[in-house]
Amino acid sequence: MVNYPHNLIRKQNKVFSEAKTINFANRGMSFETAINATNDYYLSRQIAVIHKKPTPVQIVKVDYPKRSRAKIVEAYFRQASTTDYSGVYKGHYIDFEAKETRQKTAMPMKNFHAHQIEHMASVLSQNGICFVLLHFSTLRETYLLPAADLIAFYQIDRGGKSMPLDYIKKNGYPVAESVFPQVPYLDIIEKNFLGGDDNQI
Amino acid sequence: MVNYPHNLIRKQNKVFSEAKTINFANRGMSFETAINATNDYYLSRQIAVIHKKPTPVQIVKVDYPKRSRAKIVEAYFRQASTTDYSGVYKGHYIDFEAKETRQKTAMPMKNFHAHQIEHMASVLSQNGICFVLLHFSTLRETYLLPAADLIAFYQIDRGGKSMPLDYIKKNGYPVAESVFPQVPYLDIIEKNFLGGDDNQI
Repeated sequence: MVNYPHNLIRKQNKVFSEAKTINFANRGMSFETAINATNDYYLSRQIAVIHKKPTPVQIVKVDYPKRSRAKIVEAYFRQASTTDYSGVYKGHYIDFEAKETRQKTAMPMKNFHAHQIEHMASVLSQNGICFVLLHFSTLRETYLLPAADLIAFYQIDRGGKSMPLDYIKKNGYPVAESVFPQVPYLDIIEKNFLGGDDNQI
Repeated sequence: MVNYPHNLIRKQNKVFSEAKTINFANRGMSFETAINATNDYYLSRQIAVIHKKPTPVQIVKVDYPKRSRAKIVEAYFRQASTTDYSGVYKGHYIDFEAKETRQKTAMPMKNFHAHQIEHMASVLSQNGICFVLLHFSTLRETYLLPAADLIAFYQIDRGGKSMPLDYIKKNGYPVAESVFPQVPYLDIIEKNFLGGDDNQI
């Protein structure tokens, strides 16, 4: 057995304990970037094929300069009518939206549009797996909330009210902090929605 | 019984007989528009939730004029890394690309990029339902070709060769002409890929 000096052991323990809290946020990564990196991880290991949809843009005018590629010179952002992420995991259709807030006690519902809520309801009626990933950046906590619970809350007053963290904790699942992949949301899907559990998203 | 004059009956019969061949093409509708209308039909009747992904655009410069919405003033088209259409049908992940040609005997393979072919292979490995819809506008014929058969043909010389109509007919399924919905491709999926058939896309 190697005889480590006590102070080194203490130092190592400190490092290990700090390592537990390393996540995408304190590496300067945005929540969206962390999800995209997670999806890249899933894709490269053939775990799932899940992509972020391109930003919807209404293209008004395009220039076609000679000897150069087409240049869009007038376009506008359109409101998304679906969710941002979709794909396939073991044959199942996966569909989700990701939202981030600095607030500590609630997620503002203005983050969700009526069209997106309708889309989620349609996906559920087709037996798709649909949810939202909610990141509380100040708290450094992330939750997976089934779309059914989001829709139920939205219907209270058409999204006018903030969704309390307590509601999210009660109905959702904490997403474990992880270095690789950063936001391992499929663990929750596998365990709670495909693993023979009674819960259905 | 109303006594119609004979010439009117003949005229009506002619109209009915012509109606059989009414499809999206002779109503001046593009193949893409017809597919989008089909997806709207499926969505509104709660048959499936399938959307076209937004055109991928690389946004370089955005102006934020006062009292007006953000205006994209410099952007470029990006090559799609996935297919154009995806969604959910009875819990199954559906993923496809649509291509149109005026040629009468083959579909040019330059229509398909290496990234798209890779994406299709990934989707198949996750047990997603993946295919291409191929429209021969001069012939007014449309075929559904399973992605596995497209990939097999692509691998011959990395897409350098046109795919003969004979190959498509042999491995694919003709999509019936229909007025409503215009391109009823889910009939083929239901019958051949979910109906207990041995065929697997």
